[in-house]
Amino acid sequence: MATNTDVSALIRNQGDVIRALKSSGASQEQIDKEIAKLQLIKKEHDKDDKPQFSLKCAKGARDFDPQQMAVRDQLFSTITSCFKRHGAVTIDTPVFELKDTLTGKYGEDSKLIYDLQDQGGELLSLRYDLTVPFARYVAMNRIKQIKRYHIAKVYRRDNPSIQKGRYREFYQCDFDIAGQFDPMIPDSECIRVVAEILKELNLSDFVIKVNHRLLLDAIFSISGVSEANFRTVCSSVDKLDKISWEEVRNELVKEKHIPQETADKIGTYVNLSGDNSLLNKLQTDPLLSTNQNAQIAINELQLLYTYCQRLLIGQFVTFDMSLARGLDYYTGVIYEAVLIGGHKYEVGSVAAGGRYDGLVGMFDVKNRAVPCVGVSIGVERLFSIMEQKMKGEKIRTTETEVLVMSGEDGFLEQRLSCIAKLWEQNINAELFYKKSSKLLTQIQFCEKEFIPLGVIIATEEQKNGGVKIRNISTREDKFVRDEDMVLEIKAFLGNKKCS
Amino acid sequence: MATNTDVSALIRNQGDVIRALKSSGASQEQIDKEIAKLQLIKKEHDKDDKPQFSLKCAKGARDFDPQQMAVRDQLFSTITSCFKRHGAVTIDTPVFELKDTLTGKYGEDSKLIYDLQDQGGELLSLRYDLTVPFARYVAMNRIKQIKRYHIAKVYRRDNPSIQKGRYREFYQCDFDIAGQFDPMIPDSECIRVVAEILKELNLSDFVIKVNHRLLLDAIFSISGVSEANFRTVCSSVDKLDKISWEEVRNELVKEKHIPQETADKIGTYVNLSGDNSLLNKLQTDPLLSTNQNAQIAINELQLLYTYCQRLLIGQFVTFDMSLARGLDYYTGVIYEAVLIGGHKYEVGSVAAGGRYDGLVGMFDVKNRAVPCVGVSIGVERLFSIMEQKMKGEKIRTTETEVLVMSGEDGFLEQRLSCIAKLWEQNINAELFYKKSSKLLTQIQFCEKEFIPLGVIIATEEQKNGGVKIRNISTREDKFVRDEDMVLEIKAFLGNKKCS
Repeated sequence: MATNTDVSALIRNQGDVIRALKSSGASQEQIDKEIAKLQLIKKEHDKDDKPQFSLKCAKGARDFDPQQMAVRDQLFSTITSCFKRHGAVTIDTPVFELKDTLTGKYGEDSKLIYDLQDQGGELLSLRYDLTVPFARYVAMNRIKQIKRYHIAKVYRRDNPSIQKGRYREFYQCDFDIAGQFDPMIPDSECIRVVAEILKELNLSDFVIKVNHRLLLDAIFSISGVSEANFRTVCSSVDKLDKISWEEVRNELVKEKHIPQETADKIGTYVNLSGDNSLLNKLQTDPLLSTNQNAQIAINELQLLYTYCQRLLIGQFVTFDMSLARGLDYYTGVIYEAVLIGGHKYEVGSVAAGGRYDGLVGMFDVKNRAVPCVGVSIGVERLFSIMEQKMKGEKIRTTETEVLVMSGEDGFLEQRLSCIAKLWEQNINAELFYKKSSKLLTQIQFCEKEFIPLGVIIATEEQKNGGVKIRNISTREDKFVRDEDMVLEIKAFLGNKKCS
Repeated sequence: MATNTDVSALIRNQGDVIRALKSSGASQEQIDKEIAKLQLIKKEHDKDDKPQFSLKCAKGARDFDPQQMAVRDQLFSTITSCFKRHGAVTIDTPVFELKDTLTGKYGEDSKLIYDLQDQGGELLSLRYDLTVPFARYVAMNRIKQIKRYHIAKVYRRDNPSIQKGRYREFYQCDFDIAGQFDPMIPDSECIRVVAEILKELNLSDFVIKVNHRLLLDAIFSISGVSEANFRTVCSSVDKLDKISWEEVRNELVKEKHIPQETADKIGTYVNLSGDNSLLNKLQTDPLLSTNQNAQIAINELQLLYTYCQRLLIGQFVTFDMSLARGLDYYTGVIYEAVLIGGHKYEVGSVAAGGRYDGLVGMFDVKNRAVPCVGVSIGVERLFSIMEQKMKGEKIRTTETEVLVMSGEDGFLEQRLSCIAKLWEQNINAELFYKKSSKLLTQIQFCEKEFIPLGVIIATEEQKNGGVKIRNISTREDKFVRDEDMVLEIKAFLGNKKCS
């Protein structure tokens, strides 16, 4: 790139050129062409002149301001309550894992893993999800049974799209059940957890698409795909919620060299979806009925459906043969919740998960498996919708109950003494960090910040050994003696909370 | 390195050698020598045989199990309540920042910053603290005034010491006040926040050491340190809580080439500590009284002390000239809370902070400053002490209120129907993921996990259109009709909560 001095010289030269053209009576077209060149050079020059640092967040990451945090807290609290309702404990794991821990777990998505620079010592990567760290934790601690939730950030070097709610740093809220149990019972609970959260958030209607990895494998197998190609075909099929079957077929045939007739055969199955009756239809399909994997999968899905009905969530479940889930580690039932209707933009899946019976074993020297099933709530998309819904609403970002004020000079120390008494009694209180301010400004601050009560320190009341307390909404003042202040305030706030 | 096959051959050969020596009647010494060689080879072989991955957390990082999470939640909840009591909002920033954002902010500690690998795109580093990201946030959003707290993990490539509670990934809980205010008012509130949290945690007595960067600079200046060396001398002095003055003096003289008489002069000041009377003494010190910085600093500290007394925390404050705080960005008052007495091991500082009036300006093209003061709570050390105190205590890790049980076969679907009713009513409930289990096992699980209530589904009660509910602690059973079940359970749990 040209240095600043080079560019300045270029600008001067180009100026000379334009002036020469003008004085020689050249055509306007010719002159405009040279002016355009000058502007281009200047633009380049301005770029070089920018300050040495950029004042921004890393690409694909973002700050949350206090209003956003208030919305996010509301979302997390709904999710956490649900996880606790189902008896889950919580754990935490580091934001980075040994690079080897993540290797070979994510198939084609592995290229999106963030690595840390080798600064001596271990090679580390940022976690890509919470599932692999969970499996590592279970294996490392030789845990046979655990139901845990984990809410934390994960990292993907993906192409960010704010419109689609796709970030490089984002939260996952995971709920997983590990242990050797009778089939489909924990699986149906995971689906119930998704339904409960989406019902409670009440953002829109939703469906939970369900499929089975073994059924997909059976479809690939009877269509003529070799076992070695199952996973790569799977990640193409997984795109069916974003692109058409024609495009997926193209990718299979042209990029992945799957024969046309194989691709077409796959197409006849993966475009199927429906309720329980689809399972009955598949069970008697001439090709699938000869495939053992297909029969296992269909039996499991039928059992799952029965349990979901018992759990009062049967109406949300749709069997969808196009659901594939890109990740390598799934081994059984897979599911994905999608919001339907009433949205300005396509939000895609808002929760997804499935069974991964082999992952813990990958971390065990003796390959001891602990079967797992779980679900991850896609909070960023839910957050975007909530934010849109609450746009314009004034959201409270503090919990301040009292502002200790004075409209007169010279009362700073009294204000400090007063607020200390409130803090000692666990009352949420603030004061202006100024020696003097107008009383009106302080009262307006209370109104703006929804602070219900003011304590006003003034000469007159001080003489009588007390303060005024002001009900901000009614604008009523009341004199209270210093020794009664805390009790009076507590009584006022107590009534507030009950009303 | 030798391959496995090489090593196997070596072992076989060495075995042959030993056998040959034995049969030839060689001396025991000779044989032992060859056996030792064999053992060495075998050891090497075993090493090669280990799985290719290590099942561990990254060095200096750790997992938190459910019990630890319960303790941590308790700690965070105390801290968060205090921050909210003081009217702070909360924000969040990404775990990584542009590398440039962190450059030049931490002085000699900058070498401890984790960089991400350059995988194309921006150069990123993991945040080292929450203060610099906060300043970046304030500058980027042109904020003039904010009081915010932020609880999040930070990263330092430090030498980890579990005993000292020093990790490479650890939480910070920061409370900061940005804005142009009258002197020492927000500063005294930060100190009050520290005192409130430490009092409420009630782990041990504590003192809050206070000093002023300008006073330190004055001491360095009158001792003959050139301004360019202020910060490097400062980071040596900062070690006085860990090493003796003799060692610090050595570092100053031998490593940092400060003249001996300068070092000794510094020594006469930085070893001073005491209450308000120390400030009076320093104010009249012949050398310091001629130094403008010293006079500004002492006046501010005196004002701070007055406010701290008003805020009922004067008794916790000690002025300590050895307190320096290593970080570059402090510009005024600095403080650090230390626990005293009653500890098995030295925990060092548990909270620290100060005034940094220049940091936001460093992120502004026009260098517009926003004065800031704040404090960071060292939760890892507090967590270690809490964990030790609670050792042996049985800590509840779930909030389950009801276990839906059956001692008979064939009731799985009824259990699912029953638990769905409870979940619909927001009752925290679990069931065993088995088609059948012994009733005793289920009851024992309730006892172990502190679940207060059982719902027992059995043939007899089903015939009569209901279930038994079992009070786990009294072992009393009560028949309730299906339509009354939820209300009965709510009544029971409601009473539980009040008692």
